[in-house]
Amino acid sequence: MALIVQKYGGSSVGSIDRIRNVARRLIETHKAGNAVVAVVSAMSGVTDKLIGLAHEVCENPPERELDMLLATGEQQSIALLGMAITEMGYKARSFTGRQAGIFTYGSHTRGRIRSIDASAVKDALQQGCICICAGFQGVTTDGSIQTLGRGGSDLSAIALSSALKADLCQIFTDVDGVYTCDPRVVKDARKLSVISYDEMLEMASSGSKVMQARSVEFAKKFGVVFEVRNSMNNNPGTIVQEETSAMESLVIRGVSIERNQARVTVSHITAPVPYTAIILSTLAEADINVDMIVSNTAHDGCARQSFTMNMNDLGAAQAALKKVLPQLGDQARLDTEAGLAKLSVVGVGMRSNSGVAATMFRALADAGISTGMIATSEIRITTTVEAADIERAANVVHAAFHLNVLQA
Amino acid sequence: MALIVQKYGGSSVGSIDRIRNVARRLIETHKAGNAVVAVVSAMSGVTDKLIGLAHEVCENPPERELDMLLATGEQQSIALLGMAITEMGYKARSFTGRQAGIFTYGSHTRGRIRSIDASAVKDALQQGCICICAGFQGVTTDGSIQTLGRGGSDLSAIALSSALKADLCQIFTDVDGVYTCDPRVVKDARKLSVISYDEMLEMASSGSKVMQARSVEFAKKFGVVFEVRNSMNNNPGTIVQEETSAMESLVIRGVSIERNQARVTVSHITAPVPYTAIILSTLAEADINVDMIVSNTAHDGCARQSFTMNMNDLGAAQAALKKVLPQLGDQARLDTEAGLAKLSVVGVGMRSNSGVAATMFRALADAGISTGMIATSEIRITTTVEAADIERAANVVHAAFHLNVLQA
Repeated sequence: MALIVQKYGGSSVGSIDRIRNVARRLIETHKAGNAVVAVVSAMSGVTDKLIGLAHEVCENPPERELDMLLATGEQQSIALLGMAITEMGYKARSFTGRQAGIFTYGSHTRGRIRSIDASAVKDALQQGCICICAGFQGVTTDGSIQTLGRGGSDLSAIALSSALKADLCQIFTDVDGVYTCDPRVVKDARKLSVISYDEMLEMASSGSKVMQARSVEFAKKFGVVFEVRNSMNNNPGTIVQEETSAMESLVIRGVSIERNQARVTVSHITAPVPYTAIILSTLAEADINVDMIVSNTAHDGCARQSFTMNMNDLGAAQAALKKVLPQLGDQARLDTEAGLAKLSVVGVGMRSNSGVAATMFRALADAGISTGMIATSEIRITTTVEAADIERAANVVHAAFHLNVLQA
Repeated sequence: MALIVQKYGGSSVGSIDRIRNVARRLIETHKAGNAVVAVVSAMSGVTDKLIGLAHEVCENPPERELDMLLATGEQQSIALLGMAITEMGYKARSFTGRQAGIFTYGSHTRGRIRSIDASAVKDALQQGCICICAGFQGVTTDGSIQTLGRGGSDLSAIALSSALKADLCQIFTDVDGVYTCDPRVVKDARKLSVISYDEMLEMASSGSKVMQARSVEFAKKFGVVFEVRNSMNNNPGTIVQEETSAMESLVIRGVSIERNQARVTVSHITAPVPYTAIILSTLAEADINVDMIVSNTAHDGCARQSFTMNMNDLGAAQAALKKVLPQLGDQARLDTEAGLAKLSVVGVGMRSNSGVAATMFRALADAGISTGMIATSEIRITTTVEAADIERAANVVHAAFHLNVLQA
């Protein structure tokens, strides 16, 4: 008998009919002879509604109380799913984060998982129950309810899989799996049958929003193999696992894109100051995430530094940097460029295959697409392009690496 | 410094504005130098909405899962109230039933309180927090959430008062206190300043629905003095406490009425069988609560038995009794009378004042109101009257005992 953990997101349990659909899927898995643990989110819309209520009461709700409020969303889903399974004639038992033994630490509304005591879930499985655990929530050592922040339910599922030594962890979502590129952009994008943790992390950080990076990092750390699948059909999904030597045979696993980018350049830096530290701490204090960073010295000997950020942060970045500009020299100036996008190619095969960058930039050049800043990691190459070019860029790069035909 | 427990029902926290109103009241009590513990219900309408959701999923929701679902209603109220108090600049901490240490046993959806470990609440009080506890819910020894059934929040408040050795327990509701009679029926009904546990119990069982009997019984058992007050004003309420000798000076504390009653009579019982046992167990199996019971033998030597019940149960009672009628004799017959009401006078003074029944039935006779079945306890006399007569009956009896002018 295998032990299978299945995670269902808010849209998968977004209505009573959909809750019944999930109940049927869990029962099918149970009838096939497996021990089944479900991890579920709040019904879609419920968390937002609760946050709205909180903001009716206060501008900045105290976070412990916000967690107390938000945790009710998942608690309602697990109860309703438990009822649906019972109604269909099978034994079910629901568990809040606390009852599932998910112990957390850190800040309220963005807790981290410290340990899991899955003994109550194990007992219920032994009694033949389908176990339904509230995702996104746990309990601190002092007994307060704590939520896990964005992507928290995925994290709950992966952590429970680790604690239960599950044979399989399935993350059900509204897409069939991880694709070589966003199928809305590249029509012949293929679903990947397998991807390594590191590739998945690079895809997530470069714009492919299937899962939050923290869940993938947790899975990598504890060696939890998981599958991303669609809750509305029975198609096989994408397995996310430790890298194997066979994976290197493919040069590139996928292409990811991120829109809504802006570039900020500080140039003519002449003052003998640690300008990188000054610039980056200024932006950090303004709570602005900087992504790509390029630093160099111009032909006139002045230093210049460019970085990308989300376009929504551009105004705040300008305001913050203007204040420190005088520290960087009399001539120091600030230039900005909005309307950019990022294009990345990701793949562990990059390590053993030379010429990846050449292929990528040749394809873009042939299509007449100019590139801007470039950043690389061991298994990723990223460039900025004009926002208007991003779809065409994704298509030509996807084709250049034959991602539409190659099998992973 | 006094420790005060205040319970607020669903209508008192029925909107964000009302939650703010409760927050202000708690803060006032805190600022007056008291340690304050609030016990709150779900926002009015929320519990019904959740029950509706459950019934969309199944006809008979499994009760453990129903408790899991319903408990979210109070959890939302305590979180929002905690936010409102924090927003007003005071320290607050919310507690689910489990966090407040309310341990329960018995059946789901109608749990009973077994014990309370109030140490976490005490700690928070010591830190200067206003503590906000979810009413209506607790946790079993195996960690399942259990709700306490109707009137459960009152019970939570009284049990917490007992565990915390509170100096005062205030049950806030939408009326000013306990009245000599329902003011919608008797215009000059007076609010009582004090009432004994036993009188309150008799009032509850005979139709005055200020509180469920079980909460009053718990308060009596553990000697918790409590006050019933209005959450929308600052009027003094009614103190409910152990009987004192002074209370006997008043003949009658109040008049209570209950509408929607029906009478069932089984007559011509000739079979030598334990007919009372047969009839009552038949009704119990059909889940029908019987109230007044009168048994006698008619002049022809046949036994007859009458009992009252809620009119809604009449059809089910007839169906159930018809099946067992043949066991009671060839001639046994069933008669029913709908459209009745019950009128009761209640008071510990009855024990030391003779002539209470005479005064009551004289007043009714003088008004031309005919009475039916009669039942008595040590401190209560009840009679049935025609439903059409009940308001007039209440007024003449209320006046006969001078309840509009006497001071308790």
